[in-house]
Amino acid sequence: MKMNMKKGEPYRKGKASKAPSVKIIPLGGLEQIGMNITAIEYEDTIVVIDCGLAFPEEDMLGIDLVIPDVSYLKENIEKVKGLVVTHGHEDHIGAIPYVEKEMNMPIYATKLTMGLIENKLKEHNLMNNVKRKVVKHGQTINLGCFRVEFIRSNHSIADSSGLAIYTPAGILVHTGDFKVDFTPVFGETIDLQRYAELGKKGVLALMADSTNVERPGFTPSEKKVGRTFDILFSENKNSRLIIATFASNVDRVQQIINSADKYGRKVIIEGRSMVNVINTASELGFIQIPDNTLIDIEQMKNYPDEQIVLITTGSQGENMAALSRIAANIHSKVSIKPGDTVILSSSPIPGNEKAINKIINELEMKGAKVIFQDTHVSGHACQEELKLIYALTKPQYAIPVHGEYRHLKRHAQLAMEMGVEKDHVQILSNGMILELSADSSKITGHVTSQGVLVDGLGVGDVGNIVLRDRQHLSQNGLIIVVVALEKNSNLLVAGPDIVSRGFVYVRESENLMDECHDVVEDALNDCLERNITDWGKLKTSIKDELGDFLWKRTKRNPMILPIITEV
Amino acid sequence: MKMNMKKGEPYRKGKASKAPSVKIIPLGGLEQIGMNITAIEYEDTIVVIDCGLAFPEEDMLGIDLVIPDVSYLKENIEKVKGLVVTHGHEDHIGAIPYVEKEMNMPIYATKLTMGLIENKLKEHNLMNNVKRKVVKHGQTINLGCFRVEFIRSNHSIADSSGLAIYTPAGILVHTGDFKVDFTPVFGETIDLQRYAELGKKGVLALMADSTNVERPGFTPSEKKVGRTFDILFSENKNSRLIIATFASNVDRVQQIINSADKYGRKVIIEGRSMVNVINTASELGFIQIPDNTLIDIEQMKNYPDEQIVLITTGSQGENMAALSRIAANIHSKVSIKPGDTVILSSSPIPGNEKAINKIINELEMKGAKVIFQDTHVSGHACQEELKLIYALTKPQYAIPVHGEYRHLKRHAQLAMEMGVEKDHVQILSNGMILELSADSSKITGHVTSQGVLVDGLGVGDVGNIVLRDRQHLSQNGLIIVVVALEKNSNLLVAGPDIVSRGFVYVRESENLMDECHDVVEDALNDCLERNITDWGKLKTSIKDELGDFLWKRTKRNPMILPIITEV
Repeated sequence: MKMNMKKGEPYRKGKASKAPSVKIIPLGGLEQIGMNITAIEYEDTIVVIDCGLAFPEEDMLGIDLVIPDVSYLKENIEKVKGLVVTHGHEDHIGAIPYVEKEMNMPIYATKLTMGLIENKLKEHNLMNNVKRKVVKHGQTINLGCFRVEFIRSNHSIADSSGLAIYTPAGILVHTGDFKVDFTPVFGETIDLQRYAELGKKGVLALMADSTNVERPGFTPSEKKVGRTFDILFSENKNSRLIIATFASNVDRVQQIINSADKYGRKVIIEGRSMVNVINTASELGFIQIPDNTLIDIEQMKNYPDEQIVLITTGSQGENMAALSRIAANIHSKVSIKPGDTVILSSSPIPGNEKAINKIINELEMKGAKVIFQDTHVSGHACQEELKLIYALTKPQYAIPVHGEYRHLKRHAQLAMEMGVEKDHVQILSNGMILELSADSSKITGHVTSQGVLVDGLGVGDVGNIVLRDRQHLSQNGLIIVVVALEKNSNLLVAGPDIVSRGFVYVRESENLMDECHDVVEDALNDCLERNITDWGKLKTSIKDELGDFLWKRTKRNPMILPIITEV
Repeated sequence: MKMNMKKGEPYRKGKASKAPSVKIIPLGGLEQIGMNITAIEYEDTIVVIDCGLAFPEEDMLGIDLVIPDVSYLKENIEKVKGLVVTHGHEDHIGAIPYVEKEMNMPIYATKLTMGLIENKLKEHNLMNNVKRKVVKHGQTINLGCFRVEFIRSNHSIADSSGLAIYTPAGILVHTGDFKVDFTPVFGETIDLQRYAELGKKGVLALMADSTNVERPGFTPSEKKVGRTFDILFSENKNSRLIIATFASNVDRVQQIINSADKYGRKVIIEGRSMVNVINTASELGFIQIPDNTLIDIEQMKNYPDEQIVLITTGSQGENMAALSRIAANIHSKVSIKPGDTVILSSSPIPGNEKAINKIINELEMKGAKVIFQDTHVSGHACQEELKLIYALTKPQYAIPVHGEYRHLKRHAQLAMEMGVEKDHVQILSNGMILELSADSSKITGHVTSQGVLVDGLGVGDVGNIVLRDRQHLSQNGLIIVVVALEKNSNLLVAGPDIVSRGFVYVRESENLMDECHDVVEDALNDCLERNITDWGKLKTSIKDELGDFLWKRTKRNPMILPIITEV
């Protein structure tokens, strides 16, 4: 029966035992924030949805970013028909250049999303290596035995998409990150009619955004922030305005530009990532900037404060972003003056609160007024919007995506409230293989899915041991013990020399270091007396004796590195 | 005139030039969270208000806690008449044992506050060394030329006080941490009448709590949480209940016990700090526990789940606290079962969000239901409560305390809205000496006030250099280069041996390490050829050459430690 079906035609219920099943394999994006990537597989076809990065957790010391482990895709490279991308945020596109270097997949995305992907490919010199196709909302593409339809959506970045994936097992609907904005700044409301049509056809499974599932009600329209800007511009007519927001929120920047135009201010855009996004959005027609509005930062001095609005990155307190540098007075072009008004048009992503606090304090100390309340709306659906999508699509199965476990679980509960049967709600974790048919769903396996750490140019060369060492060093510092032993006799020729870093003030620790010297010498003598000559054992003995001594004396536990040189 | 004044009598306005002035010196508690300590000084008298600790900032790697620098007090030890303490929170009492070891001050506090201080003194074997006097609300004590009155207050810990300090320059009012609770769980409403009387007498300066100054309205009564508990107990009748809250919030624990009593549950208290506080509160009569309500954790197995409520520490996600250990399944006595209900009765202190998130996820994964919304009220005054205190005390000067700069500044604005003249509002920073009289206020000096870092047994032996090294090691790891050189000739006898930690996987880096070896050898040979024999220069050369090489190859910047042994 399967062989006779039209490509991508949804399966109609027949005999239970014969229902074809599709595999859904999240390779990232569940449990932690970021790194969204999901594989959909049926026989000889794999389609990948999104390919994002994650920012390192606090205990990933020194790590720059985290990308998905695509070993499973590489092993099945001949099946991989393409990568479909829902929108242009880092957690959905950021890993593309790293993954494309390892395995070549054609990329399908809407215009702005593709523009942002291409910025990344250019940076990594990959433009000639990667096949790309821009698709329009409403368009359907054929990928192996699947058809994938891009559905118009709303989110905190323009041109975002939901997906309908027509598989032999049935239709899978993936919302991407979304909200329902009845009055979007750019474009139209999410294509609710199409979701309804799909629901009428019959949706096998809905994979929907769980980010805001703990919040009751509806997320307000992006336009609400525009009205706030108008009020703030009119209330702060005599100040220079500095507004920080997410680099990728083109509609937010559009609204700031609208207010600037209305109140006769020139606009400066500062921060590399924002300049890149706005350039791309402007070239592709996703932002309308009136003539003579944008000025270069060098021209700022030619205008009085009340005719300036500076839009900048760094609203999350990111260390190297423009706003941090401005707040810390180390920005080469902008310094805060009393009377400046700074608007943070964002809300803190969990984990960033302290960094943002620090910036607010620094700005206020320099005399700026900082406004951060009611200056942002979320890009993600709250409970009532999610319910709406369930009401329209009426899926047989619900597979919550895009959230930590707590969100997935709350989402599961919401799906059941919306009529999905309890055993048709699947909370997955990364790497699980879910096999889904009209008749049944089950976890049939696991693939590797732990994030790959990127540190400098190194991809995957920092793992748990290295991180554990960094952790140990960061908490307690280290003590190096160098001894030179005579060949064969193992007699001490030089040392022990004791060197410490990150442990204790050198001056205050002089006595302590002398004592360490004695402890090591005793340990070595003791070994010699007992005819212990094995270097491993000598090192262990030094470590143990010195470790005990230091713990007793200081209640600290530095890393101890005995180094033996043979001369 | 001063000499004829009755001790502590407020100064009545006379000739402007003769008005006596009092010094107010915050040694901590401003700009950062925690470590509250303020000195009030007049001629031969210093009174210290509070003596708290702070928890380390994120960049203070490996530091356990931060205590105030009391050098100024030590230098003026003969003037220091005593320490008056407003309430028993760590950020107001935590540094007492450390400071009392260095300088002996008699301590004055109300009963519960003193009980909690004594717990600390006992731990540090200081009970016989420190003079202590328990005072009652309404009582006034004489300290040098000051009188200090303890005023009944409300806060998230019972028995908290505001202070009126009668100085020759006038009356200073210090609110301590406070809120206005018209229906407190224990005791009575903050003594608003006394604040009004003081206002009638004439208050020179008000030092009030700035924590919640950004929040409009009134903080709800603690009783509100009690009503929520009753609802949650009735809605979760069949679950075991685990409730996490702040160890010191005796009234919160009282309300949980009240609900437990009402719904027929036995109570277990878990977590060392909470057990200590509740024992002290119970001995001193600040909590009423019905007979046969409290059971030992060992007895838990003798009761069905629906008859148990476990109250625990760790609501802020603290690593070693009971709740984290329960969530991570490493608690020796409690493990989560599906069906458990966990209530977080707290709100995240900024910086703790991610740790709390992690615990919620872990608990939910193990099948618990986690409730964290509307289960907490703050212990700090919002805008309308602060305005009330201003309206009652009508101070000549306002000196915002207890907050980061942003809070102090917002508080300054509120004080002006309440009629305090602009140049009578003083935003101080730690270490400033403010001289205040009925006629004038000015900053007349600075004292050292940077926090002292405590790491293990070491107090003050970890400073910026050590922290910078820990930071460097944590981000990039280290590479040690050991070479043994022959005496005089400086010829290489052994090595270079390269050892790395926290840099890169050893296996993956074998080639890299070989190359490092060659780079160092080249650097040394180059030095020898150029007759460079100074060890400092040799080390610099190794560092520079190897650093350049590694940056080019890896875009990483490990700490490089060349060690030369002479044999």
